[in-house]
Amino acid sequence: MSAASRAKRFNGDAEVTVFERGSVISYGACGLPYVLGGAVDDWDSLIARTPEQMRGRGISVRLRHEVTGVDAGARTITVHDRDKGQTTQEPYDKLLIATGVSAIRPDWAQTELAGVHVLRTIPDGQAIEKSMRGAKRVCIVGGGYIGLELAENLCRQGLTVTMVERGPEIAGRTLDHPYQVQVRQEVERHSVEVRCNTNVTGLTGKGGRVTGVETDGGIIRADVVIVAVGVKPNVELLRAAGARLGKTGAASVNVRQETSVEGIYAAGDNCESIHRVTRRKVHIPLGLTANRMGRIAGVNMAGGDAKFPGVVGTGIFKVFGLGVARTGLTQTEAEGLGLDAVSVDVKSTDHAGYYADAQPIDVRLTAEKGTGRLLGAQLICPNHQSVKRVDVIAAHLHGRGKADDLFQMDLAYAPPFSGVWDVLLVAADKLMREV
Amino acid sequence: MSAASRAKRFNGDAEVTVFERGSVISYGACGLPYVLGGAVDDWDSLIARTPEQMRGRGISVRLRHEVTGVDAGARTITVHDRDKGQTTQEPYDKLLIATGVSAIRPDWAQTELAGVHVLRTIPDGQAIEKSMRGAKRVCIVGGGYIGLELAENLCRQGLTVTMVERGPEIAGRTLDHPYQVQVRQEVERHSVEVRCNTNVTGLTGKGGRVTGVETDGGIIRADVVIVAVGVKPNVELLRAAGARLGKTGAASVNVRQETSVEGIYAAGDNCESIHRVTRRKVHIPLGLTANRMGRIAGVNMAGGDAKFPGVVGTGIFKVFGLGVARTGLTQTEAEGLGLDAVSVDVKSTDHAGYYADAQPIDVRLTAEKGTGRLLGAQLICPNHQSVKRVDVIAAHLHGRGKADDLFQMDLAYAPPFSGVWDVLLVAADKLMREV
Repeated sequence: MSAASRAKRFNGDAEVTVFERGSVISYGACGLPYVLGGAVDDWDSLIARTPEQMRGRGISVRLRHEVTGVDAGARTITVHDRDKGQTTQEPYDKLLIATGVSAIRPDWAQTELAGVHVLRTIPDGQAIEKSMRGAKRVCIVGGGYIGLELAENLCRQGLTVTMVERGPEIAGRTLDHPYQVQVRQEVERHSVEVRCNTNVTGLTGKGGRVTGVETDGGIIRADVVIVAVGVKPNVELLRAAGARLGKTGAASVNVRQETSVEGIYAAGDNCESIHRVTRRKVHIPLGLTANRMGRIAGVNMAGGDAKFPGVVGTGIFKVFGLGVARTGLTQTEAEGLGLDAVSVDVKSTDHAGYYADAQPIDVRLTAEKGTGRLLGAQLICPNHQSVKRVDVIAAHLHGRGKADDLFQMDLAYAPPFSGVWDVLLVAADKLMREV
Repeated sequence: MSAASRAKRFNGDAEVTVFERGSVISYGACGLPYVLGGAVDDWDSLIARTPEQMRGRGISVRLRHEVTGVDAGARTITVHDRDKGQTTQEPYDKLLIATGVSAIRPDWAQTELAGVHVLRTIPDGQAIEKSMRGAKRVCIVGGGYIGLELAENLCRQGLTVTMVERGPEIAGRTLDHPYQVQVRQEVERHSVEVRCNTNVTGLTGKGGRVTGVETDGGIIRADVVIVAVGVKPNVELLRAAGARLGKTGAASVNVRQETSVEGIYAAGDNCESIHRVTRRKVHIPLGLTANRMGRIAGVNMAGGDAKFPGVVGTGIFKVFGLGVARTGLTQTEAEGLGLDAVSVDVKSTDHAGYYADAQPIDVRLTAEKGTGRLLGAQLICPNHQSVKRVDVIAAHLHGRGKADDLFQMDLAYAPPFSGVWDVLLVAADKLMREV
């Protein structure tokens, strides 16, 4: 919908039509766990723009219309009207494939049993909400962002939560080990049972409803099972159109969001992007990136010239009483890429140490040895908002700055906001001596 | 003390002696209002390093020793021991003059009456605390950072506060008019009476104690009067040494914190610094700047080579339920410097709009027309911590970045932290279309 809006705004004469398989457009997917937990009032609150609003802008929106094929030569798509059961061919001049990602359902999760869910869409969320009624035990499979946010929000509703993670720690792909441990401890402190190094092998059920999760560590009883093991890009249409996919499995696009097929664009969670720190193609499907790509595609499709700037790998989440943020590369990631990286860890307080509500904040900064180039940061703080200062590091990574440049910055100080030396400066100071 | 610590750390053989006129070293002056209000437990909490700790590092600290003269030719200083009443000459190889600033006391405030105060040091704070006992009405003269922080903290203690400001609005020197108005409204909402365009002409007293403030708008009754009309650099010793002062009246130093006199350094609130946005000399005495200058002077005095990077004019304060931040230049300041500046105003929310604790946040971004160079930002939000994102703009100003570079940034998003488009991105987007 970002693309549609931008295209129409850029060129008022453009005829813009949106085909949506489901019944909902333009919703805040990142808010889904919070409706379940009560921090967001209702599902409708997540709707950013209704079909009526879009139509008011002169954009045609066809709900429950699934695009099932693309003929790039003839510049037509095949559209299936799910209500009328009719299939038609529709012409296009420029086509955007913004099919996003789907939640992965491993073989064991391909089940008819009630009470087994993924969380990707509003209907998914509504189904979980319904399943939760009368339920006592929830098993969340997967310890990434979504699993962690779900754990918090379902605990808030009084459910007993077990989290199963295949890897040795939760939050494994986004943080270095000491930070993973802090996240696990926080989750455990809130009575979530965390089972790492555990593989799910199947489900148990009774009367058509799930009763447990079979693992290589035994059966975990559960009235509700949520599968949060990751996402995969929806690339069927891209394949049908003959568009190239990248090594990550997502759509390969240039900075204008053009695919390898003339006239066909891709934008959003189904696309790769360029990582500005590593200069490699990555697939990191997140809200801001998707929105930004959409806007850029829209402008270009309408005759403009906009370019996607790349990402620096910024991510942030709240889990119970902790804010956790990262940007750039972790030490583990940097080493995995063959970089000669060094990290420093700093413990400080988010506000002046003597100020009433000061909380401990941990920062890890990572830089390249020799060059001193900053590579990344990780932050953890019980005052969750305080880790939003990760944005300062993200800004610095955009400019490919060094640790000592970071240390030079005139950051804001007053006791209710930080120490005289903001923890980022403290960490940069320490890092300067290591690179 | 930053200089002393750094010098000793850089060169363990250096003989470092600190002469302090008063009885306290190394305290967090910015925390003074918060001890009065109760957000900081006690005065001792503000002490960062004690003389004993410094001595433990091999630094000699002589309290109640006032340096009264400098002979730059002979490389000696005249030191007056205030307890013994003795005056001696002490030799130096390198001399740092870190005499800071004093609170300005206009003629009418040069009084013998009890209950009239400034707030600059811990003894000042302790005197105010004593005056507050049994007091009901406080008059704060001056509507800058300190006056505003005092207003909040004294209100918290149940005192009735009147604020007198000579100019047309409070927070006048740091913010553009719409932001000044928001600050005044917030202060008034908390029952502080604000009298702008009001000049103080004298004081009234009875039995040796102040009873009111005489103004050109009538007498304001007060049991306690706090004068917070600004500070002036303490430059007597610099003058005595023959060191050059800048146009601002503060010490003129180079990036190594060297004065115009060989072997004599200056650092801290008594110094000018370079503003990276305007490339002009400014005198903006703030905690981080002072600390940073001290470290740099210390390294250089001990034989190293460190350079002060300049400031970008970042400031932040909390007043009642508002966080207020600024960096770079305001529209008013930019125009005053003859720049062709344009500002945009954006209202958004600090967290995702649908998230439970989202608060409105206002951002003004200012850029140079034609070049698109970002000049500054102002932020206001009832969730005071949310304005700390001013640091992202400060980081961007360090790199002399443009509005469109800011818009490109991969900033952190999850509903408890921001909207998908962080308000800074929203503002940059709007600004791009104006420059």
